[in-house]
Amino acid sequence: MTYDLIIVGAGPAGITAGIYASRKKLKTLLICKDFIGQVGTAFLVENYPGFESIRGLDLAEKFRKHLEKFEISIEQGQKVTCIKKEDGIFLIKTDKDKSYSAKAIIIATGRDPRPLEVPGEKEFLGKGVSYCTTCDGPLFSGKKVAVIGGGNSAFGAALELSRYCKEVYILELGLKPIADEILQEKVEKTENIRLLLGIKTTAIRGSKFVESLVLENVESKKQEQLIIDGVFIQIGYIPATGFVKDLVDFSQHDEIIIQPNTCSTKTSGLFAAGDVSDIPVKQIVTAAAEGAKAALSAYKYIQDISNE
Amino acid sequence: MTYDLIIVGAGPAGITAGIYASRKKLKTLLICKDFIGQVGTAFLVENYPGFESIRGLDLAEKFRKHLEKFEISIEQGQKVTCIKKEDGIFLIKTDKDKSYSAKAIIIATGRDPRPLEVPGEKEFLGKGVSYCTTCDGPLFSGKKVAVIGGGNSAFGAALELSRYCKEVYILELGLKPIADEILQEKVEKTENIRLLLGIKTTAIRGSKFVESLVLENVESKKQEQLIIDGVFIQIGYIPATGFVKDLVDFSQHDEIIIQPNTCSTKTSGLFAAGDVSDIPVKQIVTAAAEGAKAALSAYKYIQDISNE
Repeated sequence: MTYDLIIVGAGPAGITAGIYASRKKLKTLLICKDFIGQVGTAFLVENYPGFESIRGLDLAEKFRKHLEKFEISIEQGQKVTCIKKEDGIFLIKTDKDKSYSAKAIIIATGRDPRPLEVPGEKEFLGKGVSYCTTCDGPLFSGKKVAVIGGGNSAFGAALELSRYCKEVYILELGLKPIADEILQEKVEKTENIRLLLGIKTTAIRGSKFVESLVLENVESKKQEQLIIDGVFIQIGYIPATGFVKDLVDFSQHDEIIIQPNTCSTKTSGLFAAGDVSDIPVKQIVTAAAEGAKAALSAYKYIQDISNE
Repeated sequence: MTYDLIIVGAGPAGITAGIYASRKKLKTLLICKDFIGQVGTAFLVENYPGFESIRGLDLAEKFRKHLEKFEISIEQGQKVTCIKKEDGIFLIKTDKDKSYSAKAIIIATGRDPRPLEVPGEKEFLGKGVSYCTTCDGPLFSGKKVAVIGGGNSAFGAALELSRYCKEVYILELGLKPIADEILQEKVEKTENIRLLLGIKTTAIRGSKFVESLVLENVESKKQEQLIIDGVFIQIGYIPATGFVKDLVDFSQHDEIIIQPNTCSTKTSGLFAAGDVSDIPVKQIVTAAAEGAKAALSAYKYIQDISNE
């Protein structure tokens, strides 16, 4: 059986694509590892319009339930390993050795923040450890936080946090930050930001929430403890796009390049939506909107090819 | 007092812009006529992710409450009549003879469907009268509906509805439809669509919900009644953009032309978000996402000018 549409991924983009595709009565299959995604890792979500304050996991659950109201096939617990296009039809293989085919595909596999890989990082995720200041920053108003990283996103995050946090530390492994000069100048001028270079964070500690970091000076090897309430890890992202490499073009950050108004890629019938794509804003509401756009584009594409 | 940002309009785009701007601690003013907008006119919203089924007015109310949780100034019951930019600062005047100034502006005034202006249209809005098939179409599965209009949007709406409605009438005033040939051919081939030309709809009738239309043959002037469950009015839109005409470029549909990734217009510091802009997909979730994008762009713009 050939589906009209296969959606890969079940974050806000994949789920919204599923809702819109089902409402357009497309015969749709959604393949995903799970329904948690990055939303589920957020402690509290307070910027998705309509929910003043909701636990990330609860919002992810609401999304899942909303999708399941519609007629849609779901294959959970599978990872797509390969996508090919042959004679106008897409063929998908998964790590469970299953194959599926469809007229159109939406890739919505998101991206994962690059982890620091130190003890305490996973344990305190959503309990003081965050990868997103726009999402979680305001929870730390008046508090003491650290940002790990030395690039634009780390410096930008520190400047943002400095506006409402009491103290902000930037902890960078290298001896020279790589952020743009203009950001470095701003950080220098900001009284409540302290930049520490040549510092390796070796552990995140706490009881219920994060309480401190263990830091090591890379030159002297001397260790010390830094008392903080929260830590933002800003050392890059890993988009989940390896399985699709010949069919799309990638940005310098390995994101799938799309046409912003249609979510289309260089392969006709193949769309990408949400954080996996090169849209500059990566938020829950923007990912959801991208999913809606991609589904409506896929609907139009399927109507067009059925008239050829 | 000069605000960092003034947002005009309080639909999903304006409200989400307000949420994001407040979270970035921008000193923000929102000016609006009301908090209802097009969302509030929807009978049931079933495609905004996270809410399986919610009355339009209830969703609009949730949006308003979410916004009011943040520190933001709100001026309700006013209509912006004029926006100027002088020495890098925007000046806004309203129909209540008030003036405000800000470093940046987001226009999120939406658009209104062009009304048919017949008796019953306002009365049955959300009770069988709709302006959006993607929003409300699925509520009429298995039912008999009419689409008023003869352009691409009317024919597209009819084709979409024909997939799950029992019978679909297209009612067009002119003697020749103006929809693209390909759509006309498709309509012709679709068994459950009936195209009636030279037909004026003069009234919408019903008790609790729409029950029938009064039709007049424009040539014979003969009147007849058409029994239907719902009517979709597809005769165009009127974006609310008159007050800003010298600062932006317009699409052929009078929408404000924006850069899709930033929501910026040809005037730096002036952004447009949601249905008022030329983005092709006009949905609640896409409008909300555009509001988030515009607010983050305005934040960046304000940071940039404060460093010049």
